[in-house]
Amino acid sequence: MNEFEFLAALRHLPIHDGARDFHDDCAVLKLGNEHLILTHDMMAEGTHFRPDAKMGDVAWKLVALNLSDLASKGAEPIGLLLGHSLGDGDAEFLSGLHEVLTAYDVPMLGGDTIAATGASTFGVTAIGRATHVPVPSRAGAKPGDAIYTTGTFGRAMLGFEGRVDFQEAFNRPRPLLDEGRILAPKVSAMMDVSDGLMLDAWRMAKAGGVSFHLNPELIPVAAFDRFDECIRWGDDYELLFTLPAGHSVPIAASQIGKVMEASDSPVYLGGTALSDPESLGYRHG
Amino acid sequence: MNEFEFLAALRHLPIHDGARDFHDDCAVLKLGNEHLILTHDMMAEGTHFRPDAKMGDVAWKLVALNLSDLASKGAEPIGLLLGHSLGDGDAEFLSGLHEVLTAYDVPMLGGDTIAATGASTFGVTAIGRATHVPVPSRAGAKPGDAIYTTGTFGRAMLGFEGRVDFQEAFNRPRPLLDEGRILAPKVSAMMDVSDGLMLDAWRMAKAGGVSFHLNPELIPVAAFDRFDECIRWGDDYELLFTLPAGHSVPIAASQIGKVMEASDSPVYLGGTALSDPESLGYRHG
Repeated sequence: MNEFEFLAALRHLPIHDGARDFHDDCAVLKLGNEHLILTHDMMAEGTHFRPDAKMGDVAWKLVALNLSDLASKGAEPIGLLLGHSLGDGDAEFLSGLHEVLTAYDVPMLGGDTIAATGASTFGVTAIGRATHVPVPSRAGAKPGDAIYTTGTFGRAMLGFEGRVDFQEAFNRPRPLLDEGRILAPKVSAMMDVSDGLMLDAWRMAKAGGVSFHLNPELIPVAAFDRFDECIRWGDDYELLFTLPAGHSVPIAASQIGKVMEASDSPVYLGGTALSDPESLGYRHG
Repeated sequence: MNEFEFLAALRHLPIHDGARDFHDDCAVLKLGNEHLILTHDMMAEGTHFRPDAKMGDVAWKLVALNLSDLASKGAEPIGLLLGHSLGDGDAEFLSGLHEVLTAYDVPMLGGDTIAATGASTFGVTAIGRATHVPVPSRAGAKPGDAIYTTGTFGRAMLGFEGRVDFQEAFNRPRPLLDEGRILAPKVSAMMDVSDGLMLDAWRMAKAGGVSFHLNPELIPVAAFDRFDECIRWGDDYELLFTLPAGHSVPIAASQIGKVMEASDSPVYLGGTALSDPESLGYRHG
């Protein structure tokens, strides 16, 4: 099975209401007056990082991409559980882990450490507390809403390719926790952009049953001559969100388009319908 | 680093109070009036299961060993997050997952699916709700308490070796969730026995600052002629617990010894001090 077949099959298992049918970045678990936000992301050698990657960077990124999921819900992190495969770079891994935990003031809650053969695999479960209810979801964008993103796309791609000034963007992404919390009470929909702006915009439009009309001239990219790649490459971990018309934007962000009634395609770029989700972004495996 | 060096190093990271300093099976997170119980366990091909293992059994066991951690806290499962590496046996994996989720009435909350090269690694984060406060811990055994275990040790070992009547014990262990909930209000200490009775008894005695005096004639084993192996092999997932003297035992269990003041060794077996924790149980890597 590929990832999407497997995910489809998972939907036939008993599923918690808070799982949002696996159509969101996180599960939302109501407990008394609290809403817990839960997410689990993995990274594997050879798929998500190179065998020669600095393990301190791997630890940082593994935590950061889980925290980015919490950011997309406006959640405040409570703690992490780590699934760790022992390997040569353990001391560096721990050092990077210490740095990212300190940078975002997140403590460890537990986890498991194993000896594994072959390529290393790591997993993190991040647990957070919603700071605003209802908790933002991917669905919720309404015709007339304005579409925004933070940041600039393609930075991680350039870093991956070796551009010195973008190494940090690829190796040590910064989860937008503060921005997510500020946005949570305002947005009609929000998600983090992990798999490329086009694919994630497609998903958000589909989840809301609407079409996104994007203006390519308004999308900030790190390399103008490689616009198409910048908006399709993943790993930038910016926030994509929609705001009802007339609402002011409480953080630095770019309006890149407008939500319209659903039509032939969930995403239009400069008036052209995008039709093939496979071509829209970065997919692992 | 080996597992124990890595775990020691983890204690220098920022740690949540609920992590119990990584000296317990689970983290305990107080949220309003609820106590959430969190655990994460992994299984890797080549370390925890054979390359020719039935993937339905792997899925069952992966969930079961996480639920066994919840059982040791007397917790009621809320849901699971799965970290899954795609591979040949995915359909069987999903089928085993469906069986174990249904058997224990536990829904999926979310997770991540990745393509990974080489040996497969899987992780589960289990989340439960405490049914009794204070939540039982490994620490808490007091001199004078009686020491009990459920079940019979060595069954998983015999199943691993190919004995047909014990295959189920190795492949599809049964987490003692009902027993854990019944015991939680009564015990002074409780844990699940995943790494062998001797090693886990050692850990529980150390955590409580006491000595466990065990009577070998009272320890139920599946193969009398291989007593020493039966009490050191892991994967039986029974519950080990202590009760204050004079308390009746609310479930089927065997009294295997008595808690005494700390002395030279945390564990005495038939009057002989055990001194080398490395020799006490099963360790991965």
